Amino acid sequence: MCTSFTYVNQDFYFGRNLDLDCGFGEEVVITPRQYPFLFRHKETIAHHYAMIGMATVIDNTPLYAEAVNEKGLGMAGLQFSQNAVYFPYKEDQDNIASFEIIPWILSQCETVKQARQLLERINVLDIAFKDSVPNSPLHWILADKDQSIVIESVQEGLKIYDNPFGVLTNNPPFDFHCLNMQQYLNLTKSYPENRLNKNIDLKPYAVGMGAIGLPGDASSVSRFVKTAFLKHNLYSDGTESDNVQQFFRVLHQVAMVKGSVMTAENKMDYTLYSCCINATKGIYYYTTHENSTIQKINIQDHNLAGTKLVQFPLNRQSVIF
Amino acid sequence: MCTSFTYVNQDFYFGRNLDLDCGFGEEVVITPRQYPFLFRHKETIAHHYAMIGMATVIDNTPLYAEAVNEKGLGMAGLQFSQNAVYFPYKEDQDNIASFEIIPWILSQCETVKQARQLLERINVLDIAFKDSVPNSPLHWILADKDQSIVIESVQEGLKIYDNPFGVLTNNPPFDFHCLNMQQYLNLTKSYPENRLNKNIDLKPYAVGMGAIGLPGDASSVSRFVKTAFLKHNLYSDGTESDNVQQFFRVLHQVAMVKGSVMTAENKMDYTLYSCCINATKGIYYYTTHENSTIQKINIQDHNLAGTKLVQFPLNRQSVIF
Amino acid sequence: MCTSFTYVNQDFYFGRNLDLDCGFGEEVVITPRQYPFLFRHKETIAHHYAMIGMATVIDNTPLYAEAVNEKGLGMAGLQFSQNAVYFPYKEDQDNIASFEIIPWILSQCETVKQARQLLERINVLDIAFKDSVPNSPLHWILADKDQSIVIESVQEGLKIYDNPFGVLTNNPPFDFHCLNMQQYLNLTKSYPENRLNKNIDLKPYAVGMGAIGLPGDASSVSRFVKTAFLKHNLYSDGTESDNVQQFFRVLHQVAMVKGSVMTAENKMDYTLYSCCINATKGIYYYTTHENSTIQKINIQDHNLAGTKLVQFPLNRQSVIF
Amino acid sequence: MCTSFTYVNQDFYFGRNLDLDCGFGEEVVITPRQYPFLFRHKETIAHHYAMIGMATVIDNTPLYAEAVNEKGLGMAGLQFSQNAVYFPYKEDQDNIASFEIIPWILSQCETVKQARQLLERINVLDIAFKDSVPNSPLHWILADKDQSIVIESVQEGLKIYDNPFGVLTNNPPFDFHCLNMQQYLNLTKSYPENRLNKNIDLKPYAVGMGAIGLPGDASSVSRFVKTAFLKHNLYSDGTESDNVQQFFRVLHQVAMVKGSVMTAENKMDYTLYSCCINATKGIYYYTTHENSTIQKINIQDHNLAGTKLVQFPLNRQSVIF
Repeated sequence: MCTSFTYVNQDFYFGRNLDLDCGFGEEVVITPRQYPFLFRHKETIAHHYAMIGMATVIDNTPLYAEAVNEKGLGMAGLQFSQNAVYFPYKEDQDNIASFEIIPWILSQCETVKQARQLLERINVLDIAFKDSVPNSPLHWILADKDQSIVIESVQEGLKIYDNPFGVLTNNPPFDFHCLNMQQYLNLTKSYPENRLNKNIDLKPYAVGMGAIGLPGDASSVSRFVKTAFLKHNLYSDGTESDNVQQFFRVLHQVAMVKGSVMTAENKMDYTLYSCCINATKGIYYYTTHENSTIQKINIQDHNLAGTKLVQFPLNRQSVIF
Repeated sequence: MCTSFTYVNQDFYFGRNLDLDCGFGEEVVITPRQYPFLFRHKETIAHHYAMIGMATVIDNTPLYAEAVNEKGLGMAGLQFSQNAVYFPYKEDQDNIASFEIIPWILSQCETVKQARQLLERINVLDIAFKDSVPNSPLHWILADKDQSIVIESVQEGLKIYDNPFGVLTNNPPFDFHCLNMQQYLNLTKSYPENRLNKNIDLKPYAVGMGAIGLPGDASSVSRFVKTAFLKHNLYSDGTESDNVQQFFRVLHQVAMVKGSVMTAENKMDYTLYSCCINATKGIYYYTTHENSTIQKINIQDHNLAGTKLVQFPLNRQSVIF
Repeated sequence: MCTSFTYVNQDFYFGRNLDLDCGFGEEVVITPRQYPFLFRHKETIAHHYAMIGMATVIDNTPLYAEAVNEKGLGMAGLQFSQNAVYFPYKEDQDNIASFEIIPWILSQCETVKQARQLLERINVLDIAFKDSVPNSPLHWILADKDQSIVIESVQEGLKIYDNPFGVLTNNPPFDFHCLNMQQYLNLTKSYPENRLNKNIDLKPYAVGMGAIGLPGDASSVSRFVKTAFLKHNLYSDGTESDNVQQFFRVLHQVAMVKGSVMTAENKMDYTLYSCCINATKGIYYYTTHENSTIQKINIQDHNLAGTKLVQFPLNRQSVIF
Repeated sequence: MCTSFTYVNQDFYFGRNLDLDCGFGEEVVITPRQYPFLFRHKETIAHHYAMIGMATVIDNTPLYAEAVNEKGLGMAGLQFSQNAVYFPYKEDQDNIASFEIIPWILSQCETVKQARQLLERINVLDIAFKDSVPNSPLHWILADKDQSIVIESVQEGLKIYDNPFGVLTNNPPFDFHCLNMQQYLNLTKSYPENRLNKNIDLKPYAVGMGAIGLPGDASSVSRFVKTAFLKHNLYSDGTESDNVQQFFRVLHQVAMVKGSVMTAENKMDYTLYSCCINATKGIYYYTTHENSTIQKINIQDHNLAGTKLVQFPLNRQSVIF
């Protein structure tokens, strides 16, 4: 399970928590402009925008969990089990495997607007990267500094939603989350006043009581609501430092604390890593379960003209001063 | 507003968030064994246990927000407005000003059990440290590795409660929180099962749904419940590194995100700092609003035999690698 | 706004609350078998099943809010503003106006299964009964003793859903309610036990605490959840008397108490009437806002072979013994 | 478990639900003015105010669950297990057994103000009416048209609380409910507006959404909150008929639906009866689990000058017209 959101304050930030019951060989990976992106049913893209994100590299291919390209377009895949449906090959569409979507979009598009045109031709193909790497059921959030959309390949076909909240978690489908958010319109960051009945003496005993009803459990619906509430009330002074620090504060509020969420197999789901990407500048920040100190990798510090993936094993050593 | 909790996993940990709308000159302060503790109505304590904690130092006096002594006894004061009542001088009691309570207890006691005897003689005196430093209305959590208690000086007098949760926040009084926790006994970390009616096909769409109903707002009652749920389900492997990292994860889940909580004066309440103290070893870890990287100060690295306070200005510089 | 549900215990019961800010000339109406049902774009049905329900009679036409036919098939229309979309005439479909749907189905079908075949050919026509009687935006619950379905004419066309809960309220669309119900699977009628953590002493202070989290407000989503919870845990001894009494108890729990729900125009929404129909026997029971005493009209007491509507003005006189 | 509340609209109304897992031989009982009230440790009261209420009559003694006297003072006992503490005989107090309190107060007092003086001298005695009739652990609500108070005999002694809500249910003690009500001050009957963030397009999909968060389960704390919300927003036109009808509507919203609340012994708790007493005029209205038709007994229809109890077996026959 995962939580992703966007944030604009001077620069555009895009990030997520990745919640699972075990790691998947993830590392930060820069794909430079001349690395050849192969597709099963499309021609290789040999020249493209560079991108940075978290990926497993298998057979020299970066399988991105999320990434941002050098034009400031970001995309993340989030678990969407029970609902994601991938399809057999269809003649008159762009047949793109689920694991190819992020490179397909980020290598070619500068904006969400451009990406929409590609997306409308896509048939999400039901093939695995290889036998030993089964497909994950996913949906995607795609965002630039101006807007955010959600892409879901479901029984009825491919659905593309405007995402006015700039938030995505997991099940149920996105339209459920949008309706569900309406149930929370009464919540406020403001100091609460007595709205029940003016004739009774009701005063708050504490700050924060205007948001009583905001959920705090780790279910996907509750994480969506809490993230939306925090993001849309967040204050940062607009500096890179404060933006990044406060972005992580929100992520850490909706992270899964290890031991408090059990899977159907009675394993512990927890937040493997959290990332905040300055999409405007191409800077990837992350923390891991083991190490809450923010780590940083700047795409501009590396040669983007090359053909070879640049891989950065995660620093999981607890850094304490 | 604040949140404090205790955690035992090999060593004993004691920590808190401090939430306010502005700083109060706080810094980490070690009080060595020969620093003379003065009291308004009691004799000076010239030799005592050393302690480490967060304090404002005024007129060479450490006004501790929380501290742990070298015997592993920890104490924290948390805001308790509307309910805290301090009293005039009473002849046959130990008259201790509210700002003197932490040094009074931590300088003399090794355990909660010992402290109880001192506490039962205390009259919390209604005098300010000085005219320009008005009293804060507070209640206190006191804990060692074996037990935790809460101390509240209210209209009816001094109340001492066993604290089976090892958690404290703010208003209302502690007995309210204890009763209130009973409302959440149905919540579980486990993968949810259909308990509404077996004849209907109800299946969870996500993990975490067994804890739906867990509050996520920043009110004191909700922070208490969420902290108790997380603490009592937390998994750590028992190493110092994991214990500290996961302790902060819980604190950060119940921190106040700046901008999302407004005071009656329409100022932003936020978490100034979070701390986790290894009370067994005397190591003070903290993060600040501006810098989520854990900082560390070990009481054993310093001369505890001296007479002078050792002060450590907080590192508020955002540390990112 | 409205709430409808079904109940089977020996006989089959079908009923609803009708919530509005003013009456609409409603009365109980029996349509006998030879009353000619006219349709705008279909031939008149001159011979059909008799039915009983609540209707406004305009120009000698019964505009049913809900009705049950003599075969035990029941249908109710519930407000569905913001979502109901009715369409222009379509050539190759059965073009049925929204106000014609209940007679169209109940006059011809014995079961939900039969009705499904008719429904699949329907285009819900966007025409008003007359200029002075504008269309209501509605969706419908249709049920017999074996199953229940929901019919919604929305932007994408006509949708027919299985209704495993046997409950319908209002907005949002039915599939939202189904997903939303999953959030409540942890609630139980059982005496609560401590599931938070066995190591803490948490005991319930009262019965009913296993269902804490069940919503009690009058919004459509909350009424759906509460009705489903009560219906699926309801006990009745199976006699007609107890079945009817307890059916109304559930309806009255989710009724709108006058004064507690204001519309956008600041008018008071309240439950005009509640009805429980023994669909097996054709007995219509109702209470009104003004009179909580259950009134009863038995279709079998009347000549069903006729051509003329039989109308029963509501007894709104408060009956108290 | 039980729910009681007061309502003033022209006349003063006082009523309650009585929730148990079985009946207790209850019937409506009028005690006339010359019926001699015996007390274990006080002199018999031979002349007193007449009263009407629900009681079990044992050995010619009415054990009232609740009653109203001819001066418009009402009192009800509600279950208070785990918390009620009754005491041994105390020399310098009025020693009144728990089952004697209602007659003790209602026979002598016209107002809450007068009753307070008696109450302050009371020691609630721990003796049973007889061996076969063990004491119930109770607390009491006492009200006239001007004010309401709550009386609790607990470990610390007798506590008397002002009751600004005019509501009482069961556990926990009353001061918990008062604090707890503050958590709901943000709820409103008004049509909801977007308070989360004006920059997001959040509109309500239905009326009633301003009260989302109002609890709907049958626990004592939730029933208190829901009753207070409904009572303080209730509209009635002020006629006897509407006042009584709407009073019962509120009671029925917080009644226990049979089958939906199980006790620790796995029995079904349910609302045995609901009553609304016009305390101004001395009219007792009630409904039972089996019969929702309001029954009525007017104290003025009977000779109040007598010495004999007048008993009215409950009409439990389902009355349907």
